[in-house]
This record gives sequence, structure tokens and C-alpha cells, in this order.
Amino acid sequence: MDFSVPKGMRDFLPQEMREREEVIDSIRSTFRLYGYAPFDTPAVEKMETLQRKGGEEIEGQIFKIEGGLGLRFDLTVPLARVCGGKQFSLPFKRYAIAPVWRREEPQKGRFREFYQADIDVVGSASAECEAELLACANECLERLGFANAAIKINSRKVLDALCEKIGVGEEKKGALMRSLDKIGKLDGEEIRKEMERKGIGKQEIDGVFGFIEGAKGNEKALAKIREIGTKKALEAESELSAVLCACKDYGITPQIDLSLVRGLAYYTGTVFEIKLSEDMGSVAGGGRYDSLISLFGKRLPAVGISLGIERLIALLREKRKESKGAPYTKVFVACVNEKARDYARKAAGELRSRGICTEIDLMGRNLGRQMEYANSAGIAFAAVVGEKEKKEGKITLRDLKSGKEKMVSVEEAEEIIGKD
Amino acid sequence: MDFSVPKGMRDFLPQEMREREEVIDSIRSTFRLYGYAPFDTPAVEKMETLQRKGGEEIEGQIFKIEGGLGLRFDLTVPLARVCGGKQFSLPFKRYAIAPVWRREEPQKGRFREFYQADIDVVGSASAECEAELLACANECLERLGFANAAIKINSRKVLDALCEKIGVGEEKKGALMRSLDKIGKLDGEEIRKEMERKGIGKQEIDGVFGFIEGAKGNEKALAKIREIGTKKALEAESELSAVLCACKDYGITPQIDLSLVRGLAYYTGTVFEIKLSEDMGSVAGGGRYDSLISLFGKRLPAVGISLGIERLIALLREKRKESKGAPYTKVFVACVNEKARDYARKAAGELRSRGICTEIDLMGRNLGRQMEYANSAGIAFAAVVGEKEKKEGKITLRDLKSGKEKMVSVEEAEEIIGKD
Repeated sequence: MDFSVPKGMRDFLPQEMREREEVIDSIRSTFRLYGYAPFDTPAVEKMETLQRKGGEEIEGQIFKIEGGLGLRFDLTVPLARVCGGKQFSLPFKRYAIAPVWRREEPQKGRFREFYQADIDVVGSASAECEAELLACANECLERLGFANAAIKINSRKVLDALCEKIGVGEEKKGALMRSLDKIGKLDGEEIRKEMERKGIGKQEIDGVFGFIEGAKGNEKALAKIREIGTKKALEAESELSAVLCACKDYGITPQIDLSLVRGLAYYTGTVFEIKLSEDMGSVAGGGRYDSLISLFGKRLPAVGISLGIERLIALLREKRKESKGAPYTKVFVACVNEKARDYARKAAGELRSRGICTEIDLMGRNLGRQMEYANSAGIAFAAVVGEKEKKEGKITLRDLKSGKEKMVSVEEAEEIIGKD
Repeated sequence: MDFSVPKGMRDFLPQEMREREEVIDSIRSTFRLYGYAPFDTPAVEKMETLQRKGGEEIEGQIFKIEGGLGLRFDLTVPLARVCGGKQFSLPFKRYAIAPVWRREEPQKGRFREFYQADIDVVGSASAECEAELLACANECLERLGFANAAIKINSRKVLDALCEKIGVGEEKKGALMRSLDKIGKLDGEEIRKEMERKGIGKQEIDGVFGFIEGAKGNEKALAKIREIGTKKALEAESELSAVLCACKDYGITPQIDLSLVRGLAYYTGTVFEIKLSEDMGSVAGGGRYDSLISLFGKRLPAVGISLGIERLIALLREKRKESKGAPYTKVFVACVNEKARDYARKAAGELRSRGICTEIDLMGRNLGRQMEYANSAGIAFAAVVGEKEKKEGKITLRDLKSGKEKMVSVEEAEEIIGKD
């Protein structure tokens, strides 16, 4: 029989879990710092709910459960379901850090069960939201040690206005956007060819590339958008300007990138993504989706950003590859012989009551093998206890790196361990 | 179309989530304090893995996913799968706090998606493990404010030895145990009748009740077990004695309850449960399962305890029903007019950089409506900023409960807020 883990899914052993918990806890506290509140939904949704967003691509990826159910493929659709059916005091600012499931072909760094870390603002159409989301996401990265991230921003409205102007109809707009999304991954010539294959005329292609390529720098990009001249273009220009202006006060400087599309069909306004370097995929992305919630019964503007938590965990592991990662346990209480077992338990209890993560021998091992275990587990200190320690109510605290040891009270031990 | 949440599942709004996060964080840190390490497996397992444990009851409850997969129904089977296939340094002490899914009929307090909080020790047959697990579970309860929990303990070996002695064969043992499990829920007469219906003879029933009823107090219970006289009984007696002895050093006193069975088929030795009061179901339960991992390829003893986290959350909510629960956000930065918006963002940034959870207006509201929002959200302080504050680089900090306010620097504000 085959008892392996399902394809594209993973078991997380303690060391990996500590890294994951560290990243998740750090992001969670940053989300709270910006006033986002926790909000969770079940892993399982009705298929009707999951299919409501549409998009064949996504639908083929749903893990279907008998009885008309399925596993969620993102955290946004469940949020939209709840907001569509329930009355909230607005703005509703929520965070969720939770797994989602997609039946994709697994590849390096891509899994069928993976975590997303999302913040969303529901109920406000203001550019303040975009600025706050970007500031918060950027701070999440900084707190994890990733400074100087590049924030890119665009608006679906710009692309809509451009298509309208150069005469790309609704039926070809999707194909055009999917090709544009490849800028930076494929070279310009290949993308042009792909567009041609999709039946987009040479003139339109020139129009699109002419528009995108001449727009280096935010001022030039905004001018280019204004040049389109339609109502939608001017709307996009004013929204992007407002986001950039508010971002300044948060100390971040997004760059307009007119080729930025973002995959999701439901974006309606600003879209953004954050990269740590040009040659690496994005570590965060999102946008405004003012029509999604109306599919579930209520008209409410909304905007969100999702941090690519799996990639961040992998990058952090990369950065720290030399360190093995210390366990949570700080002290191993080792007992010299059977007569000291009772005292070993009591000493462990006292250390724990002081908030020190403590282990004790559960295997009935002799002292030598207990010390071997503590060393191999990477625990920083051993508290050796025998009859002498028992009599005096003390422990012999040994620093397992330096080998230095000293008989001390638990109180003194706390101080020594705390300094480590 | 029906966009409700699936039957028996729940959305968790912010206030509930804060309660859940508080309970989970508290339990998690207690688990770490006792040296348990985080270890997670996917929500999805192969059906072969889930079915390996056997038991028709459980199998009917699995949420089946197309492609031979299913949602896990507990956290123990996935642990056994991993331990059966991988080499760990022993003892392997793991914690997991995660959702499981069961397609049961939902009832009050019972859901189809619910969290379990488990600790397990794999690789040791020592009674030290049971004592540590019980001490840790008890401390989890104490830290949540539930003191004086009653810990009950028994051993499957006692029941096996008893059945052997009074002549209840393997084929009726299961039925007998399921009936015994109802002691405390049904009265003795009803349980006797149920046993009779199951074809257990009157003499055997008298034997069982005679054994159980005369055993009040640990000393008497241990004597009763010794009286059985078989090898298995003496083994059980010595194991239970060892657990009780080690527990003493941890300051807990489990009571032997010879009618304690626990539902799960895979227990092989000690079983235990913790109750907060006689008339309430258990809040924790577990036992030793020395044969489970061998189903997945390796002979390893193991023992674990699971905290009924959903019940604990409900009890805590009950206890605190008067309080609305404060949000994580401590300060709302309210701006007097549009000219102060830029400064409001900067002030929010400064407050956040000091670790103070801060919100800012995202709705373009006037001052009055901003204050209404802050009040209704239960935020403790408002930082009002207008042109005067902007000029002086200060904020007017208002205590929203007392209504007192004072213009202060952000540094001074930190001190005032910290004291609250």
C-alpha cells in the first residue's frame, strides 16, 4: 500500500515548522499593527460559491469533494461570500493567513496545498486603502529582513482605456492582457508574435508597445495615461496619482509599470505587485476588485493584497542556510541516576513556571545518552541533577556550547539562560 | 443560488477569531514550554492512509475528494503515517493545532470542521510520557483560567485482563467497552440492559460491575487490578502506579476510573481524560497507541493527548459574556480636515513603528463620523490631528472612555497608551 503524502503536498518537520511559524507570526503581528482584524472561513465551500467567480482555469484546479463541495482555491472568494451576505461596519479590514488548495501540476516551489497571507479592505473606494495595503505589505517584508523591495503599480482602467482607444475589442482584450503579462519573462519579439497568433493586428500591437515603452518613470507614465484622453484614462490617472501621493507619507515609492496586468480576472482598478529583485517572481500581489462582492449579493468596493508566504519562507531559508535553527527548548533536565528522577521532574516544573521551555528524559536513558540527545537536538543548556542537587534544591547548569557548568538555583539559572 | 457556508461549518468574525487566536496562542506556548515541537501534515490524505486505521464509524465520516483522497479526520493518523515512513531522533515530541473534518450530523457545539490541539510522544513506552502529557494539558487549562480540573485515568490492559478473567470473548469485548463508556451518561440499570441486549451474560455483567463499583480511590483501584492476578493485569497495575507516581512531582493527581474506556479503537494501554466538572463532557482526552504506527511500517510506541479546543473556546466565551472583547487596534488617527491627511498618515506610521496597533480613516469621513467609527469599534484611544498638531509635530490623544484629551508627542503618547 502507498502511504506517501498526496502529490504536491508536504509534511512539515519541526525545523521547517519553526521557520514557518516565525514568518507567519511576524506577518500576523504586522497585519495587526495596521489595524487589520482576523477573519476566517472554512477550508470547504459549496461548489456554487467557488464557481461564482468564473474562470475555467481556476475551475479545473478545484479539489472537488462529494456532495457538491470543494476546497477553497483562494481566500478572496470566501471573503466576498461573507461580505455579500452579512452586514459589517465599514471599512471591514481583515487579515487571513491560511492554506488554499489547487490541483495544479506541482513544480519547484509550487504546491497543491499552500498558505496565503492576505489583507483586504472592504467598503472603501478610496486610494488611501491601496497606500495602506502597500505600506503594510512592505513593512511585512522589511520585518522579515527584505529591504528595498520594488513596488509596481498599474490600473486595469489604463489597459481598458488603451484597448478602447487603439480598437482592441472585448473579445481580444483578455488575450492581449495575458500576453502583456509575459513582459519581463519573454522578450518583446516573442510577445509580439504571440499576439499576432492570437489575431491581434500589427497596428494595435504597435500601439500597445508604443504606449508601454515610452513610459519610464511615474511622471512620464502619468502623462502617457493622460494622453489617452478618455474619461476612463483620466479616472485611472487620478487614482494612481492619489495612491502615489499617499504612499509618499508612508515612505514608500511604487513605480508605475504599464505592462503590469496580474492574472486574476476579477480586478477592476489598481493592480500591484512587489518584487525583491528584477529576476525573481513577485512576493506579493493584489488589486482592487470592486465588482466581485456584487456576485454574492451586495455592491461593495474592495481591494486586497496577498503575500506569497511560501516563497518568503523559502527565501528566508536560503538566506540562513548555514544555521540549523535552534529548537524552542532552552534547557534539557538530565538526571544522573534513577534516584534523582523525582527531583528532575520538579526542577523541570520550576523552570517551566518561569517561562523557560524545558525538556526532560522520557526514555529512561543513562546520563551519557541523555546528554547526547540534548546536544544533537541543539538545546542550549543542560540542567544536570543528581542527589547533591536534590539535597540542595539546585541544578548544575551546563552551557552545552562552551561546556562550562555551575551549580545554581533555578532563579540564577533563569538569569543565565535569559542572557543567552 | 445558495451561497451559504457548508452545513456544520462556520465563518469566524473578528471578535470570535480574537478569542480563538488567544486560546490557540496560549495552548501553543504551553506546548512549547514542555518541549513539544511543531509538526504539520496536509489537510488532504490518501484514502488508503485514512482507512488504514479501520473502524467503519470513522470511515463513513470522511469527506472524500475525487482522485482517491480525503480530508483528515484527526491529527494522529497523519502523525502515524509520517513516523512509519521516516527516521526520527527519539523521542519525537510533537504538537499540532489544526483543523480536522468529519461528516457527522452537526449538533450544539459539534461541527464538521473543528480544531484539535494535540501533543504526542513517539518512541517511548515509559510512564514518564503519560505524566508529562497530563501535566502539560493541565497547565494549558490552568493558563486559560480553568483550575482544579479532574484527571481520570485507566488502562485498556485492565479491561482486557478483566474480560479474559470473567470470560468475555474478543467478539463481545468491543460491545462491552462501548456500553461501559456510557457510565456516567446512562444509569447503571440501563447499561446492564444494553449489555444484555448485546448478548453478554448476566454473570459477566455482574463481574464487570462488581469490579468497577468497588474501586473508589486510587489505592483500592490498584488493589482491585492486582486481584485479577493475570500478567496483563499486573502490567497495567505497575504502569498506572508509575504514571501516578510521576504525576505527583508535577503537582497533579489523576484518579483511576475503571469504567473509563475512550472511544478510539487504537488505544493499547493507558487512557485518560480531563473534565472541568462532573456534569460536563471532557475537555481533553487521549491514551497510548503502541500498535498504530506499525500499521504504517514501523514498530514504535506512542502516546498522545488532545485538547478539545472548540469546547474550551466556548467555555471561555461563556465566562466572559459581559465583555465585548477589545480589538487589537489601540489608536485611531482621526484627521480634522483634508489638509491634515498627509500628517495623519505620518503620525500613524510613527505610532506603528513603536509597535502600537493603529488605524486611520480610509473612508474620507469627516471628523465626527471618524470618531463614531472609532467608538463603535471599541478602540481605546483617538489621535486627533489637525493643522495645529501638524505644525507642532504632535497629536491630541483622547481617551475614548473618559473623554480626556491632551496634546502630546508620539513618544509621550506611547507611554500613556502603554499604561492603559
